Amino acid sequence: MTSEATEHPLDPVFHPRAVAVVGVRSTANTGMGSFYDSLLETDFPAIGGLYPVNPKMTEINGATCYPSLLDTPDPVDHVISQVPAAAVPELVDQCVAKKVRSIHFFTAGFSETGNADMADVERAMIDKLRAAGIRAIGPNCMGLYVPQSRLAFMNGFPTESGDVFLLSQSGANAGEIVHGLVTRGVRFSKAVSYGNGADLRAHDFLDYAASDPQSKVVVAYIEGVQDGRAFFEALKRCARVKPVIILKGGRTQSGSQAAHSHTGSLAGSIEIFDAACRQAGAMRAETMDELHDLVVAAATNTRLVTGRGVALFGGGGGGFAVLSADAIDREGLTVPKMPQSAIDQMREYIPVAGSSVNNPIDAFPPEEHLEDMLRLVATAQGIDMVFMSPLTGWPRPTPATASNPTDKDSDVDKDATERATGIAAKAAQQMASLQTDTGTPVIGILRSSRMARMMGQSRGAMTEAAYKEGVGVYPSVARAARTVAQMLDWKDYRRGLPDIFKVRL
Amino acid sequence: MTSEATEHPLDPVFHPRAVAVVGVRSTANTGMGSFYDSLLETDFPAIGGLYPVNPKMTEINGATCYPSLLDTPDPVDHVISQVPAAAVPELVDQCVAKKVRSIHFFTAGFSETGNADMADVERAMIDKLRAAGIRAIGPNCMGLYVPQSRLAFMNGFPTESGDVFLLSQSGANAGEIVHGLVTRGVRFSKAVSYGNGADLRAHDFLDYAASDPQSKVVVAYIEGVQDGRAFFEALKRCARVKPVIILKGGRTQSGSQAAHSHTGSLAGSIEIFDAACRQAGAMRAETMDELHDLVVAAATNTRLVTGRGVALFGGGGGGFAVLSADAIDREGLTVPKMPQSAIDQMREYIPVAGSSVNNPIDAFPPEEHLEDMLRLVATAQGIDMVFMSPLTGWPRPTPATASNPTDKDSDVDKDATERATGIAAKAAQQMASLQTDTGTPVIGILRSSRMARMMGQSRGAMTEAAYKEGVGVYPSVARAARTVAQMLDWKDYRRGLPDIFKVRL
Repeated sequence: MTSEATEHPLDPVFHPRAVAVVGVRSTANTGMGSFYDSLLETDFPAIGGLYPVNPKMTEINGATCYPSLLDTPDPVDHVISQVPAAAVPELVDQCVAKKVRSIHFFTAGFSETGNADMADVERAMIDKLRAAGIRAIGPNCMGLYVPQSRLAFMNGFPTESGDVFLLSQSGANAGEIVHGLVTRGVRFSKAVSYGNGADLRAHDFLDYAASDPQSKVVVAYIEGVQDGRAFFEALKRCARVKPVIILKGGRTQSGSQAAHSHTGSLAGSIEIFDAACRQAGAMRAETMDELHDLVVAAATNTRLVTGRGVALFGGGGGGFAVLSADAIDREGLTVPKMPQSAIDQMREYIPVAGSSVNNPIDAFPPEEHLEDMLRLVATAQGIDMVFMSPLTGWPRPTPATASNPTDKDSDVDKDATERATGIAAKAAQQMASLQTDTGTPVIGILRSSRMARMMGQSRGAMTEAAYKEGVGVYPSVARAARTVAQMLDWKDYRRGLPDIFKVRL
Repeated sequence: MTSEATEHPLDPVFHPRAVAVVGVRSTANTGMGSFYDSLLETDFPAIGGLYPVNPKMTEINGATCYPSLLDTPDPVDHVISQVPAAAVPELVDQCVAKKVRSIHFFTAGFSETGNADMADVERAMIDKLRAAGIRAIGPNCMGLYVPQSRLAFMNGFPTESGDVFLLSQSGANAGEIVHGLVTRGVRFSKAVSYGNGADLRAHDFLDYAASDPQSKVVVAYIEGVQDGRAFFEALKRCARVKPVIILKGGRTQSGSQAAHSHTGSLAGSIEIFDAACRQAGAMRAETMDELHDLVVAAATNTRLVTGRGVALFGGGGGGFAVLSADAIDREGLTVPKMPQSAIDQMREYIPVAGSSVNNPIDAFPPEEHLEDMLRLVATAQGIDMVFMSPLTGWPRPTPATASNPTDKDSDVDKDATERATGIAAKAAQQMASLQTDTGTPVIGILRSSRMARMMGQSRGAMTEAAYKEGVGVYPSVARAARTVAQMLDWKDYRRGLPDIFKVRL
């Protein structure tokens, strides 16, 4: 289905060889809009020309700062506009003269203000750019993050490439999605924040994502749909070949008012939007947390779960098992009893008192029997997936006191950090082997509080290592259960759709 | 309403002057059941005698280990039993002979196994202890955490005292509640994990908590109620004078099966339980996260919120504002528009482009106008509370790479840690001053992902500092909104109850 051979018309936009940052700010500013700084951080100059432009500076960070775009020495492919709205018409003319390929307007203050004059200015500048064959991203947005092209629009984004494609109408939420998912192990092929979407908009990016061979999962944050029909068609084309997860901002009255003053979006009927997603075969997230969880699920073996039977394996204590069973049940999944043969076999390893080998399995098996027990559980009848907490052996947390608040470095003593890192790697490997050897999807659970404090800084390492091996890790049983239930629901309704759906599930 | 002058009959149980750990384990074990180790960590020997007992050891960690309880030199007030179930009858006889006041059975394997013989043994041992005037905690539990008495049942508990009383049928969940709330700033007056509750049980501890002058908020994890009438009466007495938050494990079919094999609890009708809580004036949490949030709310000024109007203040970007408004609306709270006079005044400080000064307020005011703007917002008509994200100035996160995974030390560079800590203290102070000066409750929001990575290890410091000043901090807008809605609902139904309720709301 993918067109690996043919270049998509938007390909050049994602792969500029020279970038000018016009209206560049001092590198002391590290908040939103520190584009030049971010491009230095990703070392864009190693692959292409980077030209800071600002008539008020002659030099920035040791590099020449050019008075205008027209003064930059070489061809420029992509322009990042940080000039005020009033200076945009002149910059547009310069872009045409310089024959750039694309421009990203960080500049805000156009149609989203509700001011009719500024909406006219926006329309006129887009018309002029289109006539010159220049594509525009924005206005009022953060633009491009393409690790392969060394483009990033915020500090701290990974320089490593991945296979998730992100399109977002909001720059802040694009940042939340990247930063939030990075700590879950996810890496991105491309991300684009497109704001008002005056030129390029959701359907253009969905169309691109559908055909991009580097993108295996697509995630979108959308406030308002501008061309209903084009959006639906592009969504359908994309969801046909890749899992697509959509979070719609402005679902409520308060939210849609906020969306209107944010990107000028008119919310439209949420019922129609939801129905369109369903009919197109896309997944819907209701919140940012759900979006994070669903991306992890779609990008790991969590997406391969076919039934509702959960084996909960962990030595987390009986009370943890009780609340976990409640959380699983609440999402319509089940906690089937283990077959008697499996119980008998487990009882050979595990003492009776203070443990349970029925499901949930609340027991600390001796190290040498752990692997056998895990396989027994993962392959038992009625079990479709194993929920697993990283096992014992973490260093203890030190006591919190007034002078030693929690969540600090000292929370886990230095000597223990190395040990924790080793255990993290081992726990990730254990989950991955179980999944590979038995074919049963393993769902990692980061138990909260005590374990979190014990794991300390190795939490992230375990999560990322597991993700790389195809094991999704979730912050709680409740969130994992909800994610699996949503994934199963998605598969159910896709099954009811015309059999044009080719994504491997 | 509290009886500060009279000693409650259970007071001695919470304040032993000498403790014997019978069946003590090597200090190498740091998992559940490392009681001796925890008592060394809290330095119990500084205030009382600590006697390890185990016939198989003559020495532990440099101290004398006694062959039997009867060999310990001085009077013993409290015994922690780690012996196997089969050895319990003999230990009970020794406790009677030694005239101890209380015994905590970590030992499991009694009525919770479903074995009728072991249930008989449990009954007989409790009868014998009662006849001798000895109170029992358990079996199958973790026992006591009393910072003031230097008692702790897990490693890493704070040695500082607080004003939250915890009773829990599960030791693991008691640990989750303590560890989870500690990172939120909460400290405890007393906590007790009481397992099967063969002697002392929920109603005894609720009765104690009601009259304990050090306990201002009461939180309970319960799997099964043993004496319905006594429980309801004690709950009513306690909830009359203090906010009581209850999480019931085993609400679903799967959960109640797990509860049965955990503490031998029969779930009973969940509808009756919920109705009883409501009628008694207690708050119900559905999940561990809700429990954490409700305790924070009850112990801070979040409990003083009287209406539904939220001002959302933060420079988090438009997309964050949109999703926040959705989350607030979803919980039945509102995001009222600011009065025009307030808008006009804010516009003097804030440029139009890329910001909104209507509500949600998505703007970065210049430092010198911040305080004025905050007061304007907090005192505007229709505003009952301010949701506030810690403001700007956090150090940037460094990029994550394969060799530098996220959530690690290096995620925030060392030089930045000190700066982050300073900003954390300032952010906490800002929220506290706003709350004190305007009388409007301030709800702190820990924005996820990007801000979390930037705040790094100073997150905990800010949360704890804010809590000490009476400002509740929540992990997300959604969770804060839900907590406030539950708190308002609680107040509503208390209003409908007979006016015996004296807790100041």
